[in-house]
Amino acid sequence: MALQKDSSLLITGALGFVGSHLLEYLLDRGYTNIAVTDRQDREVPDGVTLHVLDLTDSTATKECFEKCSPEYIINLASVATVGDSFEKAEMMLHSNTTLMLSVLEAMKQVSPKARLLQISSAAVYGQVSKDLAAHQNELIPLNPINPYAVSKLTQELLTGAYQRSYGLDAVYVRPFNHIGEKQTTAFAVPSFAHQIIEIERGNATHIEVGNLDAIRDFSDVKDIVRAYELLLDRGETGEVYNVGSGEGHSIKEMLSLLIAESTAKITVVEREDRMRPLDIPVSIADNEKITALGWHPEYKIQDTVKRIVDWHRNQ
Amino acid sequence: MALQKDSSLLITGALGFVGSHLLEYLLDRGYTNIAVTDRQDREVPDGVTLHVLDLTDSTATKECFEKCSPEYIINLASVATVGDSFEKAEMMLHSNTTLMLSVLEAMKQVSPKARLLQISSAAVYGQVSKDLAAHQNELIPLNPINPYAVSKLTQELLTGAYQRSYGLDAVYVRPFNHIGEKQTTAFAVPSFAHQIIEIERGNATHIEVGNLDAIRDFSDVKDIVRAYELLLDRGETGEVYNVGSGEGHSIKEMLSLLIAESTAKITVVEREDRMRPLDIPVSIADNEKITALGWHPEYKIQDTVKRIVDWHRNQ
Repeated sequence: MALQKDSSLLITGALGFVGSHLLEYLLDRGYTNIAVTDRQDREVPDGVTLHVLDLTDSTATKECFEKCSPEYIINLASVATVGDSFEKAEMMLHSNTTLMLSVLEAMKQVSPKARLLQISSAAVYGQVSKDLAAHQNELIPLNPINPYAVSKLTQELLTGAYQRSYGLDAVYVRPFNHIGEKQTTAFAVPSFAHQIIEIERGNATHIEVGNLDAIRDFSDVKDIVRAYELLLDRGETGEVYNVGSGEGHSIKEMLSLLIAESTAKITVVEREDRMRPLDIPVSIADNEKITALGWHPEYKIQDTVKRIVDWHRNQ
Repeated sequence: MALQKDSSLLITGALGFVGSHLLEYLLDRGYTNIAVTDRQDREVPDGVTLHVLDLTDSTATKECFEKCSPEYIINLASVATVGDSFEKAEMMLHSNTTLMLSVLEAMKQVSPKARLLQISSAAVYGQVSKDLAAHQNELIPLNPINPYAVSKLTQELLTGAYQRSYGLDAVYVRPFNHIGEKQTTAFAVPSFAHQIIEIERGNATHIEVGNLDAIRDFSDVKDIVRAYELLLDRGETGEVYNVGSGEGHSIKEMLSLLIAESTAKITVVEREDRMRPLDIPVSIADNEKITALGWHPEYKIQDTVKRIVDWHRNQ
């Protein structure tokens, strides 16, 4: 069963940051049979069917699968915060594992032949030895350092348990950092962009930042969703794929790129309480596995940063 | 801080199968400062302090830590079923992660210098390639095949996240199969022993069994708890230790040993519904890491089996 433009796609969490970019991309590409889930009744693009449900409700999830008979499921839904994830550990673990179990049970009971693209996170690599940090491939040891990362790895492990026990078809994705319009200000780049615009508007006098030395692999979310379509079609079952540019930028560099998009005078203040108990110094993808399938980043980081600042300016 | 006979020990789940053997062993060895937790007010041996609490209640857990100021914590508490763990997946994941978070938060807030012996399970290895199945060391890939195994691995991962972020002292144990008096009949060996006694008593006509071909590494629970004391004292922080005999026995062999302890005529009936969706064919420990610390099994499997059958006969 190859992916077709009229294949039945079900996307969970499709109205969030990545989901909305993914939806836009898939519609542009001509997909005609897309269903999405959200907890609230919200506006969705023409031609997309919305199922309002809480994915932690396994009965409702099963009913949704019965209604839309998905051939492909992209599981984007996830409670995703990192900075404060020790405080919200129980909620995060519970939500992320329960919704994962709902999706897996629904697949097993309703759509056992469907393919699941399980969106995990490069956070599962966690604390990586210095020699591996700048080229993290899919086989390095997994040492997550916070409950969010643990919950993402637990989702992978649960998917693996169902895959091994019931023969489900699942492909795993570990995206590295990604940025773009609509990302919440819980993350550094949109937080900086928002604060810059607040200074432009005279509502703030300075930017507050945490650790600026960390080096991350930033991709445009529009490149990330291109990889998701590719993997939905051509990923190998049971395999894990990094998605990342393979290049590192310090948070300080990103901040400079953002500041360069504004004519306002920007003062930067480092705040201890924006530091995490333990931060990962360097995290850069080895992206050989996905580039071997033909994916390469298309967007330039300066252009992405400009788009982000413009988006915040227009809010 | 070396382990002393008057060190303050806190054992969670101490009134369960392994816990009761551990408690008996530590008291025999002369430990004088032992506190245990249980959800119910039950009888405990002289000289042991019982704290009645639900470990998924983080406030109660923290209060318990404040009362007993543990220097060593042995976290045995766990929802532990395997056969039906897909049906009980959500409850199991939630209980095992929540109690783990309670213990870790209590350590972080009350006893940051204490040592945690986190009792995990060899189930985390799961589906192991044929060439590694008969000598599974601590570094082989982790491919858990059911939610119970995933929940035990998630406990390890959460412990690791706290250890890395807050510098807690934790040692990880992955025991292979262990048997002895008081084990629930949810497991094969006690289930067989119980059924044999039921036949002796004229209450049953035959034994019902699942897959008899599986090969497992069975240790006497009394050997397992000896390893726990050793690792509490001499395990290296952050390290994982297998505990297992290093020898494999098929379930069929175990059944024969058990039947040999009875003079009754025993008929064996294989039952499809006692099979699991996916069973691991072979699981045997590579125990080099713990034997290097001086641990070796002391009990002979025939003697252990005899004790188990006698125990069931006396119930």
